[in-house]
Amino acid sequence: MVPRFAGFSTFARLPTIDQVPTWDIAVVGIPFDGGTTYRPGARFGPSAVRQGSRLLRPYHPELATLPFEGGQVVDAGDITCSPFDIETAVQQIEDGANELLAGGGRLVAIGGDHTVALPLLRATAKRHGPLALVHFDAHLDTWDTYFGQRFTHGTPFRRAWEEGLLLRDHSAHVGLHGPLYSAHDLVDDAAMGFLQISSTDVASHGVEATVARLLERAGSSPLYVSVDIDVLDPAHAPGTGTPEAGGLTSRELLGLVRGLAPASIVGADVVEVAPAYDHAEITAIAAAHVLYDLVTLMARDLGG
Amino acid sequence: MVPRFAGFSTFARLPTIDQVPTWDIAVVGIPFDGGTTYRPGARFGPSAVRQGSRLLRPYHPELATLPFEGGQVVDAGDITCSPFDIETAVQQIEDGANELLAGGGRLVAIGGDHTVALPLLRATAKRHGPLALVHFDAHLDTWDTYFGQRFTHGTPFRRAWEEGLLLRDHSAHVGLHGPLYSAHDLVDDAAMGFLQISSTDVASHGVEATVARLLERAGSSPLYVSVDIDVLDPAHAPGTGTPEAGGLTSRELLGLVRGLAPASIVGADVVEVAPAYDHAEITAIAAAHVLYDLVTLMARDLGG
Amino acid sequence: MVPRFAGFSTFARLPTIDQVPTWDIAVVGIPFDGGTTYRPGARFGPSAVRQGSRLLRPYHPELATLPFEGGQVVDAGDITCSPFDIETAVQQIEDGANELLAGGGRLVAIGGDHTVALPLLRATAKRHGPLALVHFDAHLDTWDTYFGQRFTHGTPFRRAWEEGLLLRDHSAHVGLHGPLYSAHDLVDDAAMGFLQISSTDVASHGVEATVARLLERAGSSPLYVSVDIDVLDPAHAPGTGTPEAGGLTSRELLGLVRGLAPASIVGADVVEVAPAYDHAEITAIAAAHVLYDLVTLMARDLGG
Amino acid sequence: MVPRFAGFSTFARLPTIDQVPTWDIAVVGIPFDGGTTYRPGARFGPSAVRQGSRLLRPYHPELATLPFEGGQVVDAGDITCSPFDIETAVQQIEDGANELLAGGGRLVAIGGDHTVALPLLRATAKRHGPLALVHFDAHLDTWDTYFGQRFTHGTPFRRAWEEGLLLRDHSAHVGLHGPLYSAHDLVDDAAMGFLQISSTDVASHGVEATVARLLERAGSSPLYVSVDIDVLDPAHAPGTGTPEAGGLTSRELLGLVRGLAPASIVGADVVEVAPAYDHAEITAIAAAHVLYDLVTLMARDLGG
Amino acid sequence: MVPRFAGFSTFARLPTIDQVPTWDIAVVGIPFDGGTTYRPGARFGPSAVRQGSRLLRPYHPELATLPFEGGQVVDAGDITCSPFDIETAVQQIEDGANELLAGGGRLVAIGGDHTVALPLLRATAKRHGPLALVHFDAHLDTWDTYFGQRFTHGTPFRRAWEEGLLLRDHSAHVGLHGPLYSAHDLVDDAAMGFLQISSTDVASHGVEATVARLLERAGSSPLYVSVDIDVLDPAHAPGTGTPEAGGLTSRELLGLVRGLAPASIVGADVVEVAPAYDHAEITAIAAAHVLYDLVTLMARDLGG
Amino acid sequence: MVPRFAGFSTFARLPTIDQVPTWDIAVVGIPFDGGTTYRPGARFGPSAVRQGSRLLRPYHPELATLPFEGGQVVDAGDITCSPFDIETAVQQIEDGANELLAGGGRLVAIGGDHTVALPLLRATAKRHGPLALVHFDAHLDTWDTYFGQRFTHGTPFRRAWEEGLLLRDHSAHVGLHGPLYSAHDLVDDAAMGFLQISSTDVASHGVEATVARLLERAGSSPLYVSVDIDVLDPAHAPGTGTPEAGGLTSRELLGLVRGLAPASIVGADVVEVAPAYDHAEITAIAAAHVLYDLVTLMARDLGG
Repeated sequence: MVPRFAGFSTFARLPTIDQVPTWDIAVVGIPFDGGTTYRPGARFGPSAVRQGSRLLRPYHPELATLPFEGGQVVDAGDITCSPFDIETAVQQIEDGANELLAGGGRLVAIGGDHTVALPLLRATAKRHGPLALVHFDAHLDTWDTYFGQRFTHGTPFRRAWEEGLLLRDHSAHVGLHGPLYSAHDLVDDAAMGFLQISSTDVASHGVEATVARLLERAGSSPLYVSVDIDVLDPAHAPGTGTPEAGGLTSRELLGLVRGLAPASIVGADVVEVAPAYDHAEITAIAAAHVLYDLVTLMARDLGG
Repeated sequence: MVPRFAGFSTFARLPTIDQVPTWDIAVVGIPFDGGTTYRPGARFGPSAVRQGSRLLRPYHPELATLPFEGGQVVDAGDITCSPFDIETAVQQIEDGANELLAGGGRLVAIGGDHTVALPLLRATAKRHGPLALVHFDAHLDTWDTYFGQRFTHGTPFRRAWEEGLLLRDHSAHVGLHGPLYSAHDLVDDAAMGFLQISSTDVASHGVEATVARLLERAGSSPLYVSVDIDVLDPAHAPGTGTPEAGGLTSRELLGLVRGLAPASIVGADVVEVAPAYDHAEITAIAAAHVLYDLVTLMARDLGG
Repeated sequence: MVPRFAGFSTFARLPTIDQVPTWDIAVVGIPFDGGTTYRPGARFGPSAVRQGSRLLRPYHPELATLPFEGGQVVDAGDITCSPFDIETAVQQIEDGANELLAGGGRLVAIGGDHTVALPLLRATAKRHGPLALVHFDAHLDTWDTYFGQRFTHGTPFRRAWEEGLLLRDHSAHVGLHGPLYSAHDLVDDAAMGFLQISSTDVASHGVEATVARLLERAGSSPLYVSVDIDVLDPAHAPGTGTPEAGGLTSRELLGLVRGLAPASIVGADVVEVAPAYDHAEITAIAAAHVLYDLVTLMARDLGG
Repeated sequence: MVPRFAGFSTFARLPTIDQVPTWDIAVVGIPFDGGTTYRPGARFGPSAVRQGSRLLRPYHPELATLPFEGGQVVDAGDITCSPFDIETAVQQIEDGANELLAGGGRLVAIGGDHTVALPLLRATAKRHGPLALVHFDAHLDTWDTYFGQRFTHGTPFRRAWEEGLLLRDHSAHVGLHGPLYSAHDLVDDAAMGFLQISSTDVASHGVEATVARLLERAGSSPLYVSVDIDVLDPAHAPGTGTPEAGGLTSRELLGLVRGLAPASIVGADVVEVAPAYDHAEITAIAAAHVLYDLVTLMARDLGG
Repeated sequence: MVPRFAGFSTFARLPTIDQVPTWDIAVVGIPFDGGTTYRPGARFGPSAVRQGSRLLRPYHPELATLPFEGGQVVDAGDITCSPFDIETAVQQIEDGANELLAGGGRLVAIGGDHTVALPLLRATAKRHGPLALVHFDAHLDTWDTYFGQRFTHGTPFRRAWEEGLLLRDHSAHVGLHGPLYSAHDLVDDAAMGFLQISSTDVASHGVEATVARLLERAGSSPLYVSVDIDVLDPAHAPGTGTPEAGGLTSRELLGLVRGLAPASIVGADVVEVAPAYDHAEITAIAAAHVLYDLVTLMARDLGG
Repeated sequence: MVPRFAGFSTFARLPTIDQVPTWDIAVVGIPFDGGTTYRPGARFGPSAVRQGSRLLRPYHPELATLPFEGGQVVDAGDITCSPFDIETAVQQIEDGANELLAGGGRLVAIGGDHTVALPLLRATAKRHGPLALVHFDAHLDTWDTYFGQRFTHGTPFRRAWEEGLLLRDHSAHVGLHGPLYSAHDLVDDAAMGFLQISSTDVASHGVEATVARLLERAGSSPLYVSVDIDVLDPAHAPGTGTPEAGGLTSRELLGLVRGLAPASIVGADVVEVAPAYDHAEITAIAAAHVLYDLVTLMARDLGG
């Protein structure tokens, strides 16, 4: 018996990928934050979330599931990529994800900034075809370029749309809050087929009704879930790079994620945890719980 | 006139037990954290909560009560116990509580970790007989043993049940959230007669409906209220030892506690404040407000 | 193109008052905290809120407004006043505000502690006549004196009422929570014509219904909005001087403020940000968003 | 036996003044920070230093003294004074000190900001006549006025000099560092008879040689020791209001204070601990150790 | 090529014990803090020091050594022990250390509190016979009992002396500072044959002269080096449990440790890192550097 | 009269470059941290150092200089550059520096990470020819490439040497500490003509002797001074990206910088302040004092 504060730090104290012969679901870190426009530091996200996941126990009561039984879940460590060159890093992440996915398993990634969603979507779509997307975020992340750079943490879903990785009208942003550059941001985004659900909408209509809209959106398509931790209010997630007041509570976020149980999640990420701005690990813990829920949903889907 | 930041630190700037001849309600610290399984430090809870209580003013508007008038409320200081030996400490706490209760008053304890609830329940039941229990917590705290130890912060209510300190079907957990070890945890717990109300249940049904369930549960029995501050979301209570995302807000918790006004609270504790993980005293302040509400409810009950 | 983390720190990266010929709305800092009764430090509020406002973008999606287009919005810097003598400071703030208002624009002030609201109300009422008031706060701030001092952060609205700056029955407190000195506090306050809406009321009736009550209250009178950041729960605003558990969420506060769109806001302040107690700028960011919303409402009103 | 983290918080766990019939040395808090020009918060200094003094044990090895045996040492609590009006507060502090000194004991005060040194010097000189002064500080604190105010934390020693409380050529500043307003600052200061020893001087000549200069300075006169904690480098004392890089280490400061053993210390203060800026209590602990050393020196002097 | 912030967290990014067939030096964590008398939390020391060691590069310039070449150095993970029962834990640590040492290698342990030194000394002496000891600490750690407990973080070296694990007159404390219980503490300690070198002594005589005394002390005996991180001033090591002002600088400590190069270090520990009180990892980084130096000295000794 | 906490934040409250017709010395921010290999965040260095410089007064006592009189000193704001592409950013910084230097003044830059030194050296050498260099740092910063990138915060001085910007045998590193990659690092560095003075050397020989070596090194050549704040011990500068235990004190660093008074400093930078890791601004304050000293030395040189 090992106390939860002891031993090497892997996600939820799972075995590493080297310690098992095969695996079904892998949690993988992508410590890249070169696409950050404001407070950097998400490169330390994977190690912080691993440390913040030590308390996670093996039974999920709301979903009545033992996610680590049945299929094999592992911690695949971190995908290595350049801290200096975004294009190179995006390619390295895509290659790393492809290599992992070659075995037929599914990935839940820990960012890193939101730039990493693009190569993950590429690798996931390569295996599953165009994807439905549920995207939790304060921001749209469908901007075009910034300082001439096409790959940043504000652009992954525009790039993904342009590259045909997303199914039309099967994608949604949830938890939007904070000012934008212009009204065009919303128009352009809608033109890419995104449903826009704000944080205020969640408060007004409730978790259950929002889940229904998301499930309708996802339909029976293979679903990718991308969670920018700044979808939470800064009270719940101070440790992030572009915080905006007025976000979701962690209870709402967990409720929304769990509500996706009927869908088939083929890939997921939780990004933008910047531990230097965290306090008492509360952001890392929230992220770890979201990851745990995503793994549990995948485990149920695989076990079905 | 003394500014609120001046003078020795007693709970809500109350007199100490030595400064008055008799008392009706005593706030007492129990700085023991030897039963902690993850982040320790609740031994500093009493001093932190006292410091965080300096702003508390004498009139409770929601309950329309001046809790420090009528009966005498005091700060009884800390019960001294061994930091090294759990069995010894549990006995010392029980002895200390018995000694204080000998005068006929009621106690509101500041933990320390949740281990302290067991000796407090023993001492309270000794005077009032088997008790109804409303237990605010992220966790069930009805586990059996951990590292072979029967007395830890995860086991007080199983021990209390085994010892006959609790009335059957008059106990409830409120605010449960976070993963468990297995489905058996819930089954075993229910077999001890506990009602289980999750944090999500509170969100779904609201404070008022939850209060109704709790009051029905308590009935007219003497009620013990135990508040583990980790029932709050880590955003509201970062300063605690086993934080779990998705908890209550402090407004919900205060509403639930205040809702217990019709019941007869004969003992209470607020535990698991670990100040080393707190920020700007927000956890200590939340705990101080809960304590203040508990004292107010007792004062009303005594004044009736 | 300038990254948001670069360049001198003005509110929302607006031009300074010296850089434009005329202006319509000015954000102005009032770094005075000599009226604080507990945790001081709001003197650093203006610089912290400016720094926390760097991420604010130019389009407000909920209000569908580009607040910095149309009229000219500026950062007027700080009004200088004595850190040592309250009466002198109050006069200096009034003089400073009058001087700024002489050009016909409107002010949104960054405190400083709540003492600054009185001279701001004087200057605003001088131009617009007696005012309706919506006051977001944990506290009533209609106390009389403290340590013999008539001008403190707990008394501005009693003084304003006594001086005839407020319209009878057109004022409201929103978000009240925490203990009081006595039941008289509420009675005295009501006698001055204030509507009292607690944080619990907001939770019970919702943002929309609360907004309706506030708009009814304000009517078509010139409205002053005063926001003490401690109206937020300490989870959302740890960086303040007299925190009380059980407050609003930042999403609720922003919803309530935005709901005031139909009213004509002629002056406003956001006060009591004490950065030494903040973490990761979350309080400053919440305050910056509230200020942004207030500026947006004024811009809409001016543009109408 | 009581663990050091348990029980009410008095300085070094000493009895309070109410708990003993007479006393020889009293530690007294003066929670006033209305004279602060930059980062406020020293009003919380007394409670923080008390909390930071819990680890102090009863034997001083370098001075081979049991300071709490022989004479009676007590914690006299806090002198209450207005937080709003400096002149009033200065008078209240003087009155409070006079009242305490009426019994014939000696005081070691915990600030509060440095404004408090003036009334303490007045009360001390009233009993002992004009005083020698050893003043540890980054700053001269012999400025004249600031914003027209004669009593601030930058002026106590000019006022004391003007009032004849200090012996000519028996005073010294130690540990000066950081920029000044002009060369006149030094000239004016020297004209009041102060010896100026910079932090760099201490590094160059060593603790022993510096002590010799200070003892020569003090001679056999009654000595007052005033310690502004910002004499320490910000690494050693982050929790203070006007930090300047390049200060003393805590080991140097303690060595210098202990070196004063041959002198007769009749009064002392340790000021400018601002806990909101402290981390892990390191500033409070440094201050508590300096206080402990000052009490020990007084105890030796009384015991001689 | 892997960025230093990426990948699982092992000490200095060394291989784990499972990844190599044999090893010569193992870094091993002992996450036990049940013997702590004040601020707990050293149970998180191993994970924090591992994280704080990520920047350590492979060449030691002062010692002109590549410590990870030649012999095999590994991270052996954590020795598991009960968090609840000190006697049990001490035995588990001794067993764990014996098991590791069975292969003939040497251990450098990361605490955990100082209680862990006793079982480590037992295991080391079992293989090497009675040991010379250089003990860096603010405290003597030769107290007898506390709350009746013989095994705490204040008693390991008395127990070791009683058990015959230490060579007479080959042991020394270095860096002592802070008050004691009585003069007997020093007398008793000296009677056990310890040389006492205070922090002030190090400042007075310098690092080089102190090293000479330590080497003379150690002679050619097998040497155990135990480093309580609180030997550093709280400025350098805020993250510890019983901080005392006036300690060493990290440069002094590293100089003293490196000075032990001529000795033959057969075992070592670095203890009392309590990360909850650390800031920006500075304590963990200091501890990691001391560990790195100890490993380097062992590597040189083995390579000789 | 403006309190030091009031008003817009410029370095030492200097006028901005737009507010004066001409200038002699400009402080300029370069908020770029794309070349960071470990903890990022130096992009917020300029705003943090400006905020941390508010207390700087106009007279430098050790240098007996009023640096802001005589010549005109300004705050030139920040040079804007891409946060995403290092080559582009380096060129933009060089262009920005050239533009500023076109007027004949001298620059003191606030980083940003150490990558920014290369374009600054290019621009400075363009006007003054090859330069002497005094480089304060824990690290050599003469590495070659990292992840294939030639321009990072570990390589500026190798690039500068290759580009002929540095005079042979007129350059020195001061304050080196921490492990290296291999012995070749030192050999390669020495081959570029650098003198290597470690932090331990400074402790052993003292500030004065070290200054003599540096002045001999600089001779009468135009001198560039580059200060990586990580030359300080983490106790003095927690807020930096690659901290190493065992560094200089801030008093030593300031003494060394001031000792350069006889030299002719034509350019300077203070880099690697990463505020997210700072506490109570101590790193920013240390950096601000170093900048102030550098400006003072330049002002004296210009005034000669």
